Amino acid sequence: MITLTNACLARMTDGYDLIPQGAIVIDKGRILWVGPQSQIPAEYAASMHDLGGRLVTPGLIDCHTHIVFGGDRAREFEMRLEGASYADIARAGGGIVSSVRATRAEDEETLLASALKRVDHLLAEGVTTLEIKSGYGLDVQTELKMLRVARHIAQMRPVTVRTSWLAAHALPPECTDRAAYIRDVVLAGMDQGHALGLIDAVDGFCEGIAFSRDEMAAIFDHAANLELPVKLHAEQLSDLGGAAMAARHHALSADHLEYLGPDGIGAMAASGTVAVMLPGAFYTLRETQLPPVAALRQAGVPMALATDCNPGTSPMTSILLAMNMGATLFRMTPAECLAGVTHHAARALGLADRGQIAPGLRADLAVWDAGHPAELTYRIGFNPLHARIVGGEFV
Amino acid sequence: MITLTNACLARMTDGYDLIPQGAIVIDKGRILWVGPQSQIPAEYAASMHDLGGRLVTPGLIDCHTHIVFGGDRAREFEMRLEGASYADIARAGGGIVSSVRATRAEDEETLLASALKRVDHLLAEGVTTLEIKSGYGLDVQTELKMLRVARHIAQMRPVTVRTSWLAAHALPPECTDRAAYIRDVVLAGMDQGHALGLIDAVDGFCEGIAFSRDEMAAIFDHAANLELPVKLHAEQLSDLGGAAMAARHHALSADHLEYLGPDGIGAMAASGTVAVMLPGAFYTLRETQLPPVAALRQAGVPMALATDCNPGTSPMTSILLAMNMGATLFRMTPAECLAGVTHHAARALGLADRGQIAPGLRADLAVWDAGHPAELTYRIGFNPLHARIVGGEFV
Ligand SMILES: [Zn+2]
Ligand SMILES: [Zn+2]
Repeated sequence: MITLTNACLARMTDGYDLIPQGAIVIDKGRILWVGPQSQIPAEYAASMHDLGGRLVTPGLIDCHTHIVFGGDRAREFEMRLEGASYADIARAGGGIVSSVRATRAEDEETLLASALKRVDHLLAEGVTTLEIKSGYGLDVQTELKMLRVARHIAQMRPVTVRTSWLAAHALPPECTDRAAYIRDVVLAGMDQGHALGLIDAVDGFCEGIAFSRDEMAAIFDHAANLELPVKLHAEQLSDLGGAAMAARHHALSADHLEYLGPDGIGAMAASGTVAVMLPGAFYTLRETQLPPVAALRQAGVPMALATDCNPGTSPMTSILLAMNMGATLFRMTPAECLAGVTHHAARALGLADRGQIAPGLRADLAVWDAGHPAELTYRIGFNPLHARIVGGEFV
Repeated sequence: MITLTNACLARMTDGYDLIPQGAIVIDKGRILWVGPQSQIPAEYAASMHDLGGRLVTPGLIDCHTHIVFGGDRAREFEMRLEGASYADIARAGGGIVSSVRATRAEDEETLLASALKRVDHLLAEGVTTLEIKSGYGLDVQTELKMLRVARHIAQMRPVTVRTSWLAAHALPPECTDRAAYIRDVVLAGMDQGHALGLIDAVDGFCEGIAFSRDEMAAIFDHAANLELPVKLHAEQLSDLGGAAMAARHHALSADHLEYLGPDGIGAMAASGTVAVMLPGAFYTLRETQLPPVAALRQAGVPMALATDCNPGTSPMTSILLAMNMGATLFRMTPAECLAGVTHHAARALGLADRGQIAPGLRADLAVWDAGHPAELTYRIGFNPLHARIVGGEFV
């Protein structure tokens, strides 16, 4: 048992829910008691640890990443800025196909090493739970390889990893038969991955350039048979009604949502589906269509924020920057941004045991050299993390 | 003498000017020889240091910051996102006035401690030279205090600091007489600061809400009498012809430039004035008017990039993010972005002894865990710095 004292607590149980002079009692990796320091029960006063007045938040949760991938696409980024057309880049082997080729070619050790560098940057910013998707294999073997690497990351670092099966990310370059790809790769691979314990949720990309709403619905029905929760990349480039379909499948989250309309918002509110905002992709793509943040707020749809870390549309490894972009670009308040990477991000992953500072929850915490939680969102490219606590241990 | 070997050199002498398998000989803090590793002269082969194939660039230069200031403005940022009007914020004591009040109130030690945290973030990204402006004192005493803190930073850390006298940043809240402020604070303080050796250049904010072009011209004439070089915040919110006026005064740089027109571009090209791009402020202010990057490129105006680190419009402490924003938001190429924080940033500070990897220049270098210089601009919120070399020493 340890009692953290002299801390400003942002409990995130109702907005920030600040306790300016607070204490947290931790026992066996869980939070046992939270309250004003002046009211610490006598039985918890044995092993005290003074946090020097620092800010404590729940450990941060990045609930949408594609952080395991082969190669990088810096030269493609450069070619585009030098004036190359999409056709030029495709001819030079660029685009998602280049990530698929590199991810297929690299062995698990290589994929793990490059992913760990990116993961370490997130951990250095107070991340304690991380979602990782497959989706650059587009064949059963490579998709499963990506998820094994994701599981391996959780063994190598003090972080919880939640995996998502995203074989329905794109059609692979060699594909000539959509139905066969869905049957033989998306669904058959899901069965295999599920049997191996590699899959925590099923995801997809519902878009004109990827999979239709009906295709995704069939994939989600299959997931339901395996009792796997679902989520969806929806309404990023157009409104196909993906979010509403996902909500009907009780999706944990619908993600991106720039083109989400009133029907989708209503369906998400009714099902309790979390809206995951991904401003890094909005920024990188120079998108001008803003997600309907005010309408989501008004409808009571919980909003999360994530990095979307991926080599093409969001090569971003800073959750703090995602928070600043959520505020600056999407006009979320700093309190919404912090809820978006704690409480609401936990909901987006179906995790009821974290994301707030409250008795009974996991003692995953971030300690900051900051006086007020708004500072975390306000600053750009600054990391005031002092310490990370995972399962009650300073790591 | 030391010879760095097994490095990919981005010399920045003509675009990247890469040497894939290069070596650098350093002697007495200067670069003595640069070339392919296979051609190292025998007399330099004594003390070799293998860089493991890493990328080496010139040390980065942040040529426009307001990094010394009191207080912070996180709550003001939050109030605005929660719907407060500018009038509400002014009533609550916000805006630049709050930074002026806090900067006047804090002693040098406090200002130094908070600035060092921000400076350390820049140094961790490979910065070896840093410009720091006054401008939150708006009285002689506090303006000089800010520049003493700036000089102190260079004693506390291995970094070159160049100071700019920015008393012409805004009129102080107590001011009722513009002419008296310019005479008694801007000019009289410049004389004092110059006599004390605190001023490397003179800067100003030429804008409807700040100082007119004619007021700035008179200030620049005074600077010329002291043989101090000048620079200007120009054309950020409107086109007042500030950049052209600055160019006529042989300004080192004109900075911001979103509203710069053809006349200003022509004048800058003729005078060799550097265009300093500040995408952090563009981003934070959600500006939509883009600076004329293509026209500047075509006219041959050198473009630099900087953080503009300041508590109001760019609370940013990442030069790498400024590079990404230069590419993503302003469509500068990655090679232009890297020149913008090396060779052209050095020019913007009037420093001919750095910013490239070439014989005779200072051995200020950054060593990166990266394979290609485009990666530095491509990634968002990632820091691949391996080591910083200042004046020939690993620091
Ligand atoms: Zn995604
Ligand atoms: Zn400035």
